[in-house]
Amino acid sequence: MRTEQLQTPALLVERAALQHNLQTMAAALPGPRLRPHVKAHKTTSLARLQYAIGHHGFTCATIREVEGLAAAGLGADLMLANEVLDARRLGVVVESGARVTLAVDSDITVDAAAAGGVREVVIDVNIGLPRCGCEPDDAGRLADYARTKGLEVRGVMGYEGHVMLVDEPAEKSRQTEECMTRLLKASADVGGDLVSAGGTGNYAINTWANEIQAGSYLLMDTTYGPQGLPFQQALTVLARVISVNKGGWRVADLGLKSLGMDHGNPHIPGGVVWFCSDEHTTFSAEEGHDFAVGDLVRAHPAHVDPTVALHERIYVVDGEEVMDVYDVDLRGW
Amino acid sequence: MRTEQLQTPALLVERAALQHNLQTMAAALPGPRLRPHVKAHKTTSLARLQYAIGHHGFTCATIREVEGLAAAGLGADLMLANEVLDARRLGVVVESGARVTLAVDSDITVDAAAAGGVREVVIDVNIGLPRCGCEPDDAGRLADYARTKGLEVRGVMGYEGHVMLVDEPAEKSRQTEECMTRLLKASADVGGDLVSAGGTGNYAINTWANEIQAGSYLLMDTTYGPQGLPFQQALTVLARVISVNKGGWRVADLGLKSLGMDHGNPHIPGGVVWFCSDEHTTFSAEEGHDFAVGDLVRAHPAHVDPTVALHERIYVVDGEEVMDVYDVDLRGW
Repeated sequence: MRTEQLQTPALLVERAALQHNLQTMAAALPGPRLRPHVKAHKTTSLARLQYAIGHHGFTCATIREVEGLAAAGLGADLMLANEVLDARRLGVVVESGARVTLAVDSDITVDAAAAGGVREVVIDVNIGLPRCGCEPDDAGRLADYARTKGLEVRGVMGYEGHVMLVDEPAEKSRQTEECMTRLLKASADVGGDLVSAGGTGNYAINTWANEIQAGSYLLMDTTYGPQGLPFQQALTVLARVISVNKGGWRVADLGLKSLGMDHGNPHIPGGVVWFCSDEHTTFSAEEGHDFAVGDLVRAHPAHVDPTVALHERIYVVDGEEVMDVYDVDLRGW
Repeated sequence: MRTEQLQTPALLVERAALQHNLQTMAAALPGPRLRPHVKAHKTTSLARLQYAIGHHGFTCATIREVEGLAAAGLGADLMLANEVLDARRLGVVVESGARVTLAVDSDITVDAAAAGGVREVVIDVNIGLPRCGCEPDDAGRLADYARTKGLEVRGVMGYEGHVMLVDEPAEKSRQTEECMTRLLKASADVGGDLVSAGGTGNYAINTWANEIQAGSYLLMDTTYGPQGLPFQQALTVLARVISVNKGGWRVADLGLKSLGMDHGNPHIPGGVVWFCSDEHTTFSAEEGHDFAVGDLVRAHPAHVDPTVALHERIYVVDGEEVMDVYDVDLRGW
């Protein structure tokens, strides 16, 4: 099958770029040094590639992701890096033989883990981003509380998300160290082996964590693109030009329902995007480029994670040849 | 079942508000005066309610929506208000006995309609929004071309989307008239019965069109909310507070994968939203409000259409009681 036969919009992943990203990260962070975050792709078939290259543990954001990976035989070491107040579905996964480690940041979430049948937890520590995580000073106490509930405490995790897009390398390094100093302090109080943190934006400089939770590196987006990372833009949204107006604009059949928009408009090579509607993107042509009705375009989304979550499947392509089709099977909750 | 038993995030529709919106619109634009746009809810069960109250024609944005409504027996008069370059799937729907009218705005899209087995078209006219639609001056010629291809031309459509959120009533009225003057000019050249246009933002004042393509009215969002329309906010995203930080912020388990973000952050009653991440929304409490871990919150999304497209199902509720569950079955393309 060729791309021109696909119903648009369609999510494409360029096979060579995917392989490049897989191999580049596995060389930098081999085996258990990377715990790939599946929230970025929500696709068991992509997790299988990450497993095959040596990363046997995964980071998840939802119970559905944990269930799906476990059912697919990828449940050797799953961390749900998110708080839940009803852990019973996770208890069922544990009963099935998978290893599940759940993030906790309060007594209530510890109680939920124990009540739901989860056996292992990680203390989620706030290291600067205003989101989940207990205060570093409280981490030791919370770990002790978890142990009184019969839970095994595997260590600490944190996410310095606010550091990912800092441009200046020295400043990014300084901020990462500041965050990780907090996490290591908590780690000393908590005990356990795991110090889990980081992401695609600072995987190469976060040498304090012993595992990195990067996810975006595999597919990439235009937000991470300008950061000078060694990963290639593998993900695009294929669309067709369906209308050309003599006023100078073109319309392609992708829009708010096929693109994550929180980081802004997509980039269309050779084009200037004016705005996106539900099923349309209006754009003009850059000097030296033209777009006619029927032309295929490949838009680069600004944010990979919510873009993937809008699609049922991913087409793996080599140029215009469709090589494989993956279900985006871990969507929903 | 009660809302506290739902896995969060979950899409809720308040039954009384839904009924109010259905009835209010049906009173204003009874029967065929409204051609509800299903792109706003992508849910056959909601289309059934619109059908039952008298609106037997539907507007669609995707081939999938046309196929789904036809398969559900709601195919009496389906308009795909969008250009397509491969109409063969629509031809199959026509063969099955449903009535399908396809928007065309160029010779190429006319050719595609004829080649795909579509029998009826509507001339899509650009009336001011820089998106699809031929120039008004070209509409008559395009209709003639369609007739030479054996297509029945049912009339014209346009979408004055840029007028929907104009605040000042007189200005909105003036701009609507300006757009509709263009459409009526095209209508005179094209012939046929249909003059299809408008939306939730100007359904009450667009008296030039003989059918209105409103969709958002049924569920509503915070973008249309301040417009003083007689519709109630029926749609909310149910979430749980999963973390409370002494720094003053709370975290609820909804985010970029459960909210359309192109119109900005959701509103949490009693809260001030700081930012949304993939699976989280960080917010603080307004004076006089408190949020504890485990509390349920109902966020009002800023844009209904892309929010619904992220969910597998809609829970119809009466307060905290879950009365019904609808599949969001028309997602995808």
